[in-house]
Amino acid sequence: MRRAIELAARGRGTTSPNPVVGCVVLDAAGQVVGEGFHAYAGGPHAEVVALRAAGERARGGTAYVTLEPCAHTGRTGPCALALLEAGIARVVVAVSDPNPAAAGGADRLTRHGVAVTTGVLAAEAARGNAEWLTSVRLGRPHVTWKYAATLDGRSAAADGTSQWITSPEARADVHRLRGEADAIIAGIGTVLADDPRLTVRRPPGDGVPADGPGLPAGRSGTGARPPKEGAPATRQPLRVVVDSDARTPLTARVLDGGAPTLIAVAADADADALASRAEVVRLARRRPYGIDLAGLLAELHRRQIVGVLLEGGPTLAGSFLKEGLIDRVVGYLAPALLGEGAAALGPAGAATIAETHRLEFEDVTPTGPDLRLTARPVPLKEL
Amino acid sequence: MRRAIELAARGRGTTSPNPVVGCVVLDAAGQVVGEGFHAYAGGPHAEVVALRAAGERARGGTAYVTLEPCAHTGRTGPCALALLEAGIARVVVAVSDPNPAAAGGADRLTRHGVAVTTGVLAAEAARGNAEWLTSVRLGRPHVTWKYAATLDGRSAAADGTSQWITSPEARADVHRLRGEADAIIAGIGTVLADDPRLTVRRPPGDGVPADGPGLPAGRSGTGARPPKEGAPATRQPLRVVVDSDARTPLTARVLDGGAPTLIAVAADADADALASRAEVVRLARRRPYGIDLAGLLAELHRRQIVGVLLEGGPTLAGSFLKEGLIDRVVGYLAPALLGEGAAALGPAGAATIAETHRLEFEDVTPTGPDLRLTARPVPLKEL
Repeated sequence: MRRAIELAARGRGTTSPNPVVGCVVLDAAGQVVGEGFHAYAGGPHAEVVALRAAGERARGGTAYVTLEPCAHTGRTGPCALALLEAGIARVVVAVSDPNPAAAGGADRLTRHGVAVTTGVLAAEAARGNAEWLTSVRLGRPHVTWKYAATLDGRSAAADGTSQWITSPEARADVHRLRGEADAIIAGIGTVLADDPRLTVRRPPGDGVPADGPGLPAGRSGTGARPPKEGAPATRQPLRVVVDSDARTPLTARVLDGGAPTLIAVAADADADALASRAEVVRLARRRPYGIDLAGLLAELHRRQIVGVLLEGGPTLAGSFLKEGLIDRVVGYLAPALLGEGAAALGPAGAATIAETHRLEFEDVTPTGPDLRLTARPVPLKEL
Repeated sequence: MRRAIELAARGRGTTSPNPVVGCVVLDAAGQVVGEGFHAYAGGPHAEVVALRAAGERARGGTAYVTLEPCAHTGRTGPCALALLEAGIARVVVAVSDPNPAAAGGADRLTRHGVAVTTGVLAAEAARGNAEWLTSVRLGRPHVTWKYAATLDGRSAAADGTSQWITSPEARADVHRLRGEADAIIAGIGTVLADDPRLTVRRPPGDGVPADGPGLPAGRSGTGARPPKEGAPATRQPLRVVVDSDARTPLTARVLDGGAPTLIAVAADADADALASRAEVVRLARRRPYGIDLAGLLAELHRRQIVGVLLEGGPTLAGSFLKEGLIDRVVGYLAPALLGEGAAALGPAGAATIAETHRLEFEDVTPTGPDLRLTARPVPLKEL
């Protein structure tokens, strides 16, 4: 199952709005005869890829799958049926499918005499599928808040300068995060202050994982989507600017056409000029941030946005946190001290220590000279 | 040599104002026949302990020592002589002795036909002796700034509450740090706000390392200093309050007699009342913090204070940092977010990003649910 989870992770960034799924098929003697993962929406499911590689050797064998095999026919046929037709005798599942449209695969297999075990390495597999599980269970995208700061929590110096607090390695890692997201959200403050592009830029030679054994060529990672002529090979997430008063300058880089852009404005904002350069969505005006953030996420969910990267600034991040809309925090911590300047996070509704937003570290990884910290709110939302 | 460095570390917190030193003696065939470390000032040096354990087996053998053997007679005889008398044929040294009064041991050994190699694992050994090397080379104590904060760099909530941001495990680790220091410095702001005791309190059963092989009983760690009747067994560092205007209340816990206390006031402060309860030292009034901090460290150096733990608050820590008086930063980072409240660090003379105080991570260790980060300024001061 650990190998199946590794395989599943290769689909990160390209399967949305589908989950990442990995599958390992063993023959009746327990030898690995097929591996597969779901590489892109509309492409073959992990089970099908692994069964194809296994061929007749799958008969009487075991399939390890990170997510319950689907029982419905979507863009591809149901995987439960494929497993039955291949003569698989036993299926081991990590996480049950919470999606009512697709669930029932385990039942269907059991009814046809296949032994099904569920819950093996479930927490680990669920972490790898956090975006998709959040989307299905909560009906809104999974939100990762990313920040970069000094040890004393500053994201800019007192004079407003902030380039660069973290290292080239940390900044490259942010592009990896962006590449895994379906949308990137920034506040108007950040757009006015830093004029970011909010696009994915990868260093040459980076980003395309090698094919695994038993996988048909051209199915893995970004290779699954051949670039259009003249277009960047990298999939660009939707850029979203939270801009209640429609103040985004028409010359802003987020309007440069390098990726689709959505400007979220308040219902009563004058956004006629902006509407010619980007899609404008109108949302109820709300305190403290200006617009209804849960409404914005609902709108993104309707557009099949599963994973969102929130890139600040501090005020917007504080508002998301206050409303319980942050599922994961990724902080790039530079070994540096400023002592003054803008804090990484603005007011988040915690005025006393008892109201502190508590999290749990999930991962700590050196990134160049910096540290990358990944944490999730506690009590952990059931995934 | 790695074993000798491990042995040396057992002396941490009890050898001051002496360095920590470890020694491993091998016989002529290369078998370990003696180990030792310097356990307390006035006690036998590491070489002597190891040679005693080795006895006649040291003849023709090799001694690994973390610091150049001394050539002078202080409270104990010169170790260079002891090595010669034991018939050691080869001495391997990590760090040369920068102390002019004690140096010359390597020369003396070489003149008597002993092969001496210096610089083996020098950086690692120097890190273990950072306090003492800073003291000898810079003529002032080594300063460790300790802070505890949320991921966004807050040490207290907006209403001033701060108990507890970090976990019991992190707080226990702070007591370990205190136990290794000769003095603990806090600002008057912290004394007025939190009324800390600034003493070392250890959980029962903690803090006494087990004796190593070949060591005479009662020579290691805190066991080396039998407690006075009724007194706590733990050595208490000097408590230092930076209090330019002598505002420490006579009822403050730092004046409770639980450990010696020094109040550093400005030359013109009215400190008559305080002088009856603690030692008062007068220093030149200086902006921004109130008193001459380098002068305070010089005063502590005269008192043979080698390692200092600076416990804040943010204003005092910022002033130390601005003046280049911080040698090590130990941060306890809680997986928590506040969004408002007091910052861990106050102004430190870095108004623009180019003036950022840059450090280098030396260690990252999970401490309960928290992370302990250790970093040192770069360019690293030569140790």
